[in-house]
Amino acid sequence: MNTKYASEWIYCVSEFLPDDLALNGNRFMLGNGYMGVRGTLEEHGENELAGVMLNGGYDQVPGRWREPVNAPNGLFTVVDGAGEIVRHEQRLDLRRGRMARETEYENVTVESERFVSMANVHLMGLKYSSTRSAKTSIDSKVWNINGSHFHILETSLDEVVVKTQEQGIIIAVCSEIEPIDETSFYKYISIYTSLDCDDPVAAARENSRAAKEAGWEKVGAEHDAVWEKIWARCDVKIEGDDEAQFALRYSLYQLQLTAPRHSDRLSIPARGLSGQVYKGAVFWDTEMFMTPFFALTDPAVARNLILYRCHTLDGARRKATEYGFRGAFYAWESQETGDDFCTHFNVTDLFTDRPMRTYFRDKQIHVGADVVYAIWTYYEQTGDFSVFTDGAAEAVAECARFFHSYAYYKEDKVRYELLDVVGPDEYHERVHNNAFTNRMVKFALETAVQVLELLRERDPEFFHTLDRQFGFSEEVGSWKKMAAELYIPSPNEKGIIEQFDGYLKLEDTTPEELKTRVIKPTEYWGGGHGLATTTQVLKQADVVLMLNLFRSDYSAEVIKANWEYYEPRTEHGSSLSACAYAMVAANLGKPDWAYTYFMKTATVDLTGKSKLYLGPLYIGGTHPAANGGAWLSAVFGFAGLQINAAGITATPNLPSHWKSLKFGIEWQGKAYQIHVKPDTVRVYEA
Amino acid sequence: MNTKYASEWIYCVSEFLPDDLALNGNRFMLGNGYMGVRGTLEEHGENELAGVMLNGGYDQVPGRWREPVNAPNGLFTVVDGAGEIVRHEQRLDLRRGRMARETEYENVTVESERFVSMANVHLMGLKYSSTRSAKTSIDSKVWNINGSHFHILETSLDEVVVKTQEQGIIIAVCSEIEPIDETSFYKYISIYTSLDCDDPVAAARENSRAAKEAGWEKVGAEHDAVWEKIWARCDVKIEGDDEAQFALRYSLYQLQLTAPRHSDRLSIPARGLSGQVYKGAVFWDTEMFMTPFFALTDPAVARNLILYRCHTLDGARRKATEYGFRGAFYAWESQETGDDFCTHFNVTDLFTDRPMRTYFRDKQIHVGADVVYAIWTYYEQTGDFSVFTDGAAEAVAECARFFHSYAYYKEDKVRYELLDVVGPDEYHERVHNNAFTNRMVKFALETAVQVLELLRERDPEFFHTLDRQFGFSEEVGSWKKMAAELYIPSPNEKGIIEQFDGYLKLEDTTPEELKTRVIKPTEYWGGGHGLATTTQVLKQADVVLMLNLFRSDYSAEVIKANWEYYEPRTEHGSSLSACAYAMVAANLGKPDWAYTYFMKTATVDLTGKSKLYLGPLYIGGTHPAANGGAWLSAVFGFAGLQINAAGITATPNLPSHWKSLKFGIEWQGKAYQIHVKPDTVRVYEA
Repeated sequence: MNTKYASEWIYCVSEFLPDDLALNGNRFMLGNGYMGVRGTLEEHGENELAGVMLNGGYDQVPGRWREPVNAPNGLFTVVDGAGEIVRHEQRLDLRRGRMARETEYENVTVESERFVSMANVHLMGLKYSSTRSAKTSIDSKVWNINGSHFHILETSLDEVVVKTQEQGIIIAVCSEIEPIDETSFYKYISIYTSLDCDDPVAAARENSRAAKEAGWEKVGAEHDAVWEKIWARCDVKIEGDDEAQFALRYSLYQLQLTAPRHSDRLSIPARGLSGQVYKGAVFWDTEMFMTPFFALTDPAVARNLILYRCHTLDGARRKATEYGFRGAFYAWESQETGDDFCTHFNVTDLFTDRPMRTYFRDKQIHVGADVVYAIWTYYEQTGDFSVFTDGAAEAVAECARFFHSYAYYKEDKVRYELLDVVGPDEYHERVHNNAFTNRMVKFALETAVQVLELLRERDPEFFHTLDRQFGFSEEVGSWKKMAAELYIPSPNEKGIIEQFDGYLKLEDTTPEELKTRVIKPTEYWGGGHGLATTTQVLKQADVVLMLNLFRSDYSAEVIKANWEYYEPRTEHGSSLSACAYAMVAANLGKPDWAYTYFMKTATVDLTGKSKLYLGPLYIGGTHPAANGGAWLSAVFGFAGLQINAAGITATPNLPSHWKSLKFGIEWQGKAYQIHVKPDTVRVYEA
Repeated sequence: MNTKYASEWIYCVSEFLPDDLALNGNRFMLGNGYMGVRGTLEEHGENELAGVMLNGGYDQVPGRWREPVNAPNGLFTVVDGAGEIVRHEQRLDLRRGRMARETEYENVTVESERFVSMANVHLMGLKYSSTRSAKTSIDSKVWNINGSHFHILETSLDEVVVKTQEQGIIIAVCSEIEPIDETSFYKYISIYTSLDCDDPVAAARENSRAAKEAGWEKVGAEHDAVWEKIWARCDVKIEGDDEAQFALRYSLYQLQLTAPRHSDRLSIPARGLSGQVYKGAVFWDTEMFMTPFFALTDPAVARNLILYRCHTLDGARRKATEYGFRGAFYAWESQETGDDFCTHFNVTDLFTDRPMRTYFRDKQIHVGADVVYAIWTYYEQTGDFSVFTDGAAEAVAECARFFHSYAYYKEDKVRYELLDVVGPDEYHERVHNNAFTNRMVKFALETAVQVLELLRERDPEFFHTLDRQFGFSEEVGSWKKMAAELYIPSPNEKGIIEQFDGYLKLEDTTPEELKTRVIKPTEYWGGGHGLATTTQVLKQADVVLMLNLFRSDYSAEVIKANWEYYEPRTEHGSSLSACAYAMVAANLGKPDWAYTYFMKTATVDLTGKSKLYLGPLYIGGTHPAANGGAWLSAVFGFAGLQINAAGITATPNLPSHWKSLKFGIEWQGKAYQIHVKPDTVRVYEA
């Protein structure tokens, strides 16, 4: 592992490797849900992928992909004639969300510390000192994957105002300098956009001014205090495994810095706030791998993530209409409106250099069911009924309506089927009756029925208003019938649940064998003619993920048989895969099988060993879903946590070298501590 | 056009071009439905693609494609030291089915004439003379695309007996020589196989002996007499267009030589008897483009073609079972058993050299409906009810059963749909609700209902026996319901019928434009990532073919709108395409639009301008479906023939330079002559 940690809270690298610039930009991320600041150095610019990504601010250069906008970089500070780097150390303090660096150039030594305030989401603080005088400014030549988004309206050393070309978003970056001595200073950088308020320039100026007035110590202390509260809620202590302890904590750090605490109009993009990869879009990753973490550690964040889906329901409705369905068809790649910004040609074929038709957008229907799953789980765990009247009931019902309109009835077999879909395993497009999708949709239909009943009972007035507007109650009968008669593939005589119709007839081979057939190293294995498409090799957990979610429906023998069947056939080409294998293995009483996958998911942003290219496309960045998956693996896997109406239980399946595992959760408005040892479990109110 | 005809019945080439060897092998075909003999010269062997293809004798070399067998070539005759060719003329007499050649080599001049007897299907005759002594024998080194099939059991100058390796078919080729003078002889060559009789060697010997005894003149006259009868039934006379006259006659010649008159266990492969291309398999081509010709000109042949499908019904049943359906799923590539010998990887990707998953086999469900269409049309035109009790009723009902088990019901839209199919336009695989397929299936379901009613009425005993065995009558209700509620795409506001769901949203471009994107000249435009797959460019008539078959369902405006819409988007990559465009255009009163397509279909085997390669695969040969299509275009297009219960009508749409069109048909057991001029129609009993 390419990490070196000075203490249990510090991540540190002590050499400067130009090849690691992109990776270290991810590893040393700072952020606060409003913005994410890449861990490049102050002197770095667009070539080094310096980035100050604004969550929810999207813009499109004509003919290119729509992507989030990087704000002008107020940290930008250079010393002329510094020379080559002689010595370098860079540290990330997870506990306080601060990055520090000390770099000896041939002709100058630079030290700095920075934070992105958790207490004031528009504020960054920089403390900078050097042995020769430095020039600090606001760099408006920012990193973009899909073209330059700015018209520069105004630029000076301490104020840059730009306007994005498609959306006309005004972004104001203002700074105040507080000199310490001739070569050292504090810099208070503020960002406001026209999405935040009517006069972002004035707001940014005032914010920096106020910060400068309060001073470095005070704004820093306020920031630290929020992080302290965050850690008090979510930290997990692993006794007996420092490496796992650090990796898990680091995962939670990365996840927390992406969380929108200040707005219910934002969610968490698949690559967090680390850049424009995947169009900065929100995927099902959030609902399946992040919301469950927040629901149990910081329900207000989970609520924001859910309300983001409620606020973007009209985009999902438009997508359903576009494809000839009713209800809501949630986007594969969702931005601020909920419209789907995934294209039908999302990958380039390396052999012909032609755009490749892919079916992420139009066939990956499980997203809506994942949203329903997140909503219901949140409600079950928090008891927060208000989420339904704030939009979630409507969203759930529109998803059910969509699924009914998507489904077909097979008279010959007396059942509903879901045809022509893409499941989590994207290497197999346009399959019929994907087990994961079908089971999730059944859950969504049942949930919709239940939510409407609940609503009618607890808030009849709201229910009737909603129903008058949308006519859901007329359709509840058809959802019930479909849920009851929807085909859910059963285990075969060997206990294997077929991933989709015909999967078991495909060529039976392994990812390792397929690698020997690769012609171009980054060729895509899916799509119309990818190597995996005609084989049983899957990109990521699919049936195993389904078994993890619905484990009470299946015997341990069946779950084990499927884990053992699918595991050697899974490429883990997605960072979402490992945690499902970890959780299921731990629950099977095989924590040592699980441990490898747990470490894989928990270290993904430390090692940087995930895929960096899909075809010719850069797909690097941070992996908040894997970060969330690390927590899920520890808590639902190794600790064996189960939460239901009856209460909280834990059935530990600790890796053999772990002495104990300790963490907190919030359930039904109360905080609990759970302390698990190999043979004992303690659950107590905190 | 690369032809030169000496008279209206003679096709002639008068130079020898080595590059034309394969084409001339096709152009100078002889045959009699039992065997097809390629028009190579006597001195040619496997390198020149000499071939004596046996209809229905299939064999497989392990690991290769199963294909028809070429028999040892009894025509093989060489003169040593002949030198280079100085002068060459080769003539095909269509009227008598004879090929003659005269070749001046540097050191010898060779003349020969040959025929493949229509009177005695096991017999070939060769008259050979040269200016120096020649050696004649039986060449057992025959042309094979997929490996050598023979074990040689016995070989001498006048007798070769071989056994095929998979099926163990014994093929005996025996010859008798009758010398004329020192350098001239007649040769009587006979072929029998163990599929024909128990002792093929004795049978072949006896057949040649008897022919020799009868003598050249007599066996030749018997052969000629059959051809004379054939032409009396099927010839079409075009006044005012010698080129069209010859091309159409030539088409009928090519088609007639493939027709199995002697057996109801054989059909006509897609490349006739010209070689092993497309595995020598029988496709839907027969039912849609050949059977209708024979049904009206030689019903006994049509009956044999239909009974071939009845005899191979069990293969179609096995295929249905293989894919999880009930009933009969007719093969895309049918050989002697009806099992499908098409593979799931039928094309090789030129960019990766990997086998390409194609869906000809598992998704082109329309074949069964095409079979039903041929059966019903045959019955309607001939009144031959016995075909139903000889197997056709069972076949029709099993097709309906299959279609019901394939279909899905869409509650939301209150209709049945046919999902995940490939229509005639194979460039778009796995589409939903292909208009052609849906309409054909509706026809098949209605026909099945009607056939069972007819059977119950006319032969109740047979009906009850059949029904006791297969239980069809229990399912008739579901077929009726499905036929009534099956989704048939309607014309949109512009009158366009969408080829399949979503077709009109695809990139709108033309074949010409696509050609500019081609990277490798023979790259496949369909499959998982072919150039046409994401565009509206279609391989061949699809909606237009449907409109041709069901023209009374649609207004002339709609038919015209679709012709005009689809025509510029059609690549005509299949030889089945042109005739559909010709027929529809003629019926729209646009015979000059039709004429180009008529000539394209009628000259396909003369020009050799069809595709020769699909990916790396040779697909050349003759085109009996296009040959049939030429007749259909003349008779149903230009003459505007309509046949229904009320009788025969014709509505001429002659090309402007045609003075008249005259042809015979047989309808309900009686022969009629139809004589069409621009303004007059005469129909009279012949």
